[in-house]
Amino acid sequence: MKINGKTFIVTGGASGLGLETSRHLSSLGANIFIMDMNEENGRKVVEELGSDKTMFSSVDITLEDSVKLSLEHCLKKFKEIHGVINCAGIAAAMRVVKRDGEIHPLDLFTRVVMVNLIGTFNVIRLVADIINKQNKSNDEEEKGVFIMTASIAAFEGQVGQSAYSASKSGVVGMTLPMAREFATLKIRINTIAPGTFETPMIGMLPQTAIKSINDSIPFPSRMGKPKEYAFLCQHLIENTYINGEVIRLDGALRLSKL
Amino acid sequence: MKINGKTFIVTGGASGLGLETSRHLSSLGANIFIMDMNEENGRKVVEELGSDKTMFSSVDITLEDSVKLSLEHCLKKFKEIHGVINCAGIAAAMRVVKRDGEIHPLDLFTRVVMVNLIGTFNVIRLVADIINKQNKSNDEEEKGVFIMTASIAAFEGQVGQSAYSASKSGVVGMTLPMAREFATLKIRINTIAPGTFETPMIGMLPQTAIKSINDSIPFPSRMGKPKEYAFLCQHLIENTYINGEVIRLDGALRLSKL
Amino acid sequence: MKINGKTFIVTGGASGLGLETSRHLSSLGANIFIMDMNEENGRKVVEELGSDKTMFSSVDITLEDSVKLSLEHCLKKFKEIHGVINCAGIAAAMRVVKRDGEIHPLDLFTRVVMVNLIGTFNVIRLVADIINKQNKSNDEEEKGVFIMTASIAAFEGQVGQSAYSASKSGVVGMTLPMAREFATLKIRINTIAPGTFETPMIGMLPQTAIKSINDSIPFPSRMGKPKEYAFLCQHLIENTYINGEVIRLDGALRLSKL
Amino acid sequence: MKINGKTFIVTGGASGLGLETSRHLSSLGANIFIMDMNEENGRKVVEELGSDKTMFSSVDITLEDSVKLSLEHCLKKFKEIHGVINCAGIAAAMRVVKRDGEIHPLDLFTRVVMVNLIGTFNVIRLVADIINKQNKSNDEEEKGVFIMTASIAAFEGQVGQSAYSASKSGVVGMTLPMAREFATLKIRINTIAPGTFETPMIGMLPQTAIKSINDSIPFPSRMGKPKEYAFLCQHLIENTYINGEVIRLDGALRLSKL
Ligand SMILES: NC(=O)c1ccc[n+]([C@@H]2O[C@H](COP(=O)([O-])OP(=O)(O)OC[C@H]3O[C@@H](n4cnc5c(N)ncnc54)[C@H](O)[C@@H]3O)[C@@H](O)[C@H]2O)c1
Ligand SMILES: NC(=O)c1ccc[n+]([C@@H]2O[C@H](COP(=O)([O-])OP(=O)(O)OC[C@H]3O[C@@H](n4cnc5c(N)ncnc54)[C@H](O)[C@@H]3O)[C@@H](O)[C@H]2O)c1
Ligand SMILES: NC(=O)c1ccc[n+]([C@@H]2O[C@H](COP(=O)([O-])OP(=O)(O)OC[C@H]3O[C@@H](n4cnc5c(N)ncnc54)[C@H](O)[C@@H]3O)[C@@H](O)[C@H]2O)c1
Ligand SMILES: NC(=O)c1ccc[n+]([C@@H]2O[C@H](COP(=O)([O-])OP(=O)(O)OC[C@H]3O[C@@H](n4cnc5c(N)ncnc54)[C@H](O)[C@@H]3O)[C@@H](O)[C@H]2O)c1
Repeated sequence: MKINGKTFIVTGGASGLGLETSRHLSSLGANIFIMDMNEENGRKVVEELGSDKTMFSSVDITLEDSVKLSLEHCLKKFKEIHGVINCAGIAAAMRVVKRDGEIHPLDLFTRVVMVNLIGTFNVIRLVADIINKQNKSNDEEEKGVFIMTASIAAFEGQVGQSAYSASKSGVVGMTLPMAREFATLKIRINTIAPGTFETPMIGMLPQTAIKSINDSIPFPSRMGKPKEYAFLCQHLIENTYINGEVIRLDGALRLSKL
Repeated sequence: MKINGKTFIVTGGASGLGLETSRHLSSLGANIFIMDMNEENGRKVVEELGSDKTMFSSVDITLEDSVKLSLEHCLKKFKEIHGVINCAGIAAAMRVVKRDGEIHPLDLFTRVVMVNLIGTFNVIRLVADIINKQNKSNDEEEKGVFIMTASIAAFEGQVGQSAYSASKSGVVGMTLPMAREFATLKIRINTIAPGTFETPMIGMLPQTAIKSINDSIPFPSRMGKPKEYAFLCQHLIENTYINGEVIRLDGALRLSKL
Repeated sequence: MKINGKTFIVTGGASGLGLETSRHLSSLGANIFIMDMNEENGRKVVEELGSDKTMFSSVDITLEDSVKLSLEHCLKKFKEIHGVINCAGIAAAMRVVKRDGEIHPLDLFTRVVMVNLIGTFNVIRLVADIINKQNKSNDEEEKGVFIMTASIAAFEGQVGQSAYSASKSGVVGMTLPMAREFATLKIRINTIAPGTFETPMIGMLPQTAIKSINDSIPFPSRMGKPKEYAFLCQHLIENTYINGEVIRLDGALRLSKL
Repeated sequence: MKINGKTFIVTGGASGLGLETSRHLSSLGANIFIMDMNEENGRKVVEELGSDKTMFSSVDITLEDSVKLSLEHCLKKFKEIHGVINCAGIAAAMRVVKRDGEIHPLDLFTRVVMVNLIGTFNVIRLVADIINKQNKSNDEEEKGVFIMTASIAAFEGQVGQSAYSASKSGVVGMTLPMAREFATLKIRINTIAPGTFETPMIGMLPQTAIKSINDSIPFPSRMGKPKEYAFLCQHLIENTYINGEVIRLDGALRLSKL
């Protein structure tokens, strides 16, 4: 799909990977509709990218009505939707059973799965319906493109990541069945599994932790730059033959047990 | 781990794969504690296997208190717990967007993930805590064994399986991080990904559907027998070196798009 | 890595995926050095792309001396080498034991593995040595980029593909250890696993076979275009953070048993 | 398949995993035919297990005639063949390009692939032909069972393992296409991917290396015992529904880069 002139929803677009993707797709001529809970950041992005081609909507992606209402605003402003980049997500680090005997709260597990997996599905199902109803195919072949964000923790989760890994491998596993379904709607869907990226999610770590992460990454031996994630999003939108695939973006990192 | 004399919880043990596993482990000398919502079936199993070595508890695995209370009953009767076979689960078949425009209800997605993924986690975290507190290691090396049940739909989900695939790949993805954590507790955890098995979950299909499923399975060209699932459970309990692994049990079936 | 002004070796560059990749990288300003056994085609490509920026060398990639000599020619003309796109490969379709009792010749198996796996390794090891000795890092970070070509038959090979699947999964499996090694050389390596592409390798099939292949591909429901492969190569060269990864390029196709 | 009274070929049966598997299957009542290059060890095994139910044949599995002749001896003694456990294999550790500039010899790569991949295929194709011609199905359903031995280096090969990883991932990749083909012959085929096992292949390492390997294995935090491998072989023979699958047997180990 050609990017220029198209409209993309970026969930979690107010920070980190989503923010950089919003910038990048905007610079390529796309309209950007950001769904995020962080109003302050959201408004800043619109200021930065310009309110003619960008819009922010305060949304909790786990809530049916919140997303529905937001999509109405999006359609009112941009008329059509051509894809979603799903970046909204939360991390969590907690052992199932800690050494001191504390047990992983069920609520925490549920919350992580709710946002990362169920929230992602919630947005996609509602947008798929809208794209399906948009009459004309935009490019010769395609009507829409979805990108989901998993994590390499989906494949080799570490100690403390049972909830996060479960939520992200859930995303990995629903990629193919959705690609198979969306074939008749002329929508593609792929997933990016990032390694460790320089974003606010990671930024709070102490300097020594960051050094040790960098050392564990084969090459390039540093965290990923959000621009590199955004660049892969661009390719996944533009290359029509990639579908139903999950791509690791990690400098050849494989997560060790700790 | 040797099976004779040990106590295993079997969730979903009142029907299908869990029922057959209860029978099999019981025949090998284990105490069986069944957690299931189906009281009628549950009571029948206890009758069949004998109430001295078997107990049924009416539990919804998604509910924290329900499982906790049930575990107290289990400990009262059997004193110790050595493992869980997680078979409780539900299926669902629904397109994200149907041809008639109907959209996959968010509730349905949430319910499937709640039971298959979050319910599984709920039971494991509470039992891991109990096993951790049991003083003595039962065998030379091991204090506990967990088996989770995914599905090959975790890997190549079909049209209509986005919720089911998501829930089951979530189980697949949390296998390794939990194995890594449970190492210090001397607990192993593995997952079985069944193909298509002759159970009530499948049994309602019309004869022609069953014939076409059988034809799609390379060899043996028939559905799996619950006994074959139970037999693999036995091996996963007995073979101490299998850990953090997901095993397909499917007669070499790979699910096609429809 | 920026492509303009760099020199890439394309094995199998005289036909199909390699040919289109040669054209594409050339159009982006790269020097192209084609290693192929097909002299006639090879010379045509040089004519098409211009002998100042393109060179053809008649090489059998399985032969140590043939590749070594060829690399000397390459260095004489272009001074430096920055990467290899490994497209040289052969297909084979033969049952292990045919219905009429004929057995898969060992030679055929060996030949397929020799070209697709060992030939690929032969070129990479010799070029890695050259890049390692080139003094200055070309871009800020990277000295070289390798791309190997596997096939989705590496993951779900069909009847008759034991040799081909073995050779291609061999390529898949050596991607990560090579990425880990090449980290110290500042070289990245990734693998593309194409589905079914419109090339001479496929072109000889009858029209009905092609129709049935197309129908099996979810979306886009047609064979891949070599341009789409070349476009992914471009991205793998340009996106510095993708390393040690294998990417399916297949329109969400999963190969069924036949 | 029931093991008692059946005849199994064990390649590499004179040492390590193959030796222990020979012992184990023999103790379960099987006839064992060992193909190995190590005559001294081979003769010892026959002495140990008894020459009525065991036979050794000095074979290089890479050679067509050597294997063919040996199979004639096997049939003469045991009349029928019901399966092969492929354990013959060699390891190799060599960087593609060493720090001192030495390049991985092509011969070494070829030799490793020749033994581990092509040799495995060579034995299987010839035995599949024999089993196919044996008139009666031995059990109700099955005529034969094959087990191949890969390695977890097929999935996350380390520095120095490009040849070994390539050969073992080749084995992984041909598992499914062979299972699909052998379906019509009523033969199952599966692959075991061992982690690190206490065998002569590993035994030569210094004590510190062994300690560091053990520490890297989550649980049980020690090398695998050949008995555990043999035990999984037993299960793969006995459980009719496991087919086309690759099973990691590694105590939840994931290989890090070094
Ligand atoms: N940064 C990394 O290293 C890394 C690695 C692997 C995967 N990821 C994934 O990438 C995605 C983006 O991560 P990031 O590093 O940019 O994080 P981030 O915290 O910088 O940004 C995430 C954004 O999502 C928003 N958000 C969270 N919950 C939401 C909800 N319920 N509804 C709407 N918006 C919500 C937050 O407000 C925030 O703006 C996440 O899904 C994360 O799991 C990140
Ligand atoms: N049968 C198959 O072909 C197949 C294939 C792949 C995976 N599986 C999985 O195997 C497992 C067992 O399946 P089955 O075929 O035996 O199904 P089944 O329906 O025969 O048995 C499932 C049991 O789980 C119980 N259960 C459901 N929800 C529960 C809850 N919230 N709390 C407690 N108990 C609950 C049910 O009452 C039932 O007794 C499931 O997880 C299923 O997804 C089955
Ligand atoms: N076309 C497809 O559908 C498809 C699908 C999956 C993978 N692939 C892989 O993509 C690669 C390119 O395939 P293609 O379709 O372009 O095939 P192609 O036959 O059009 O081109 C392959 C080229 O490799 C050359 N070659 C073969 N053996 C060689 C040797 N020993 N030394 C040097 N050159 C040699 C041939 O001369 C030919 O020019 C192959 O590795 C193939 O296995 C192709
Ligand atoms: N030991 C481990 O930690 C480990 C780990 C992963 C995989 N494996 C694999 O398991 C298999 C068995 O390994 P092991 O540790 O028992 O090794 P081992 O060296 O103890 O035994 C291998 C046997 O194979 C025989 N052999 C080698 N080449 C042969 C040939 N061309 N023809 C016939 N026989 C040949 C040897 O003579 C030897 O008896 C190998 O394939 C190995 O790659 C072993």
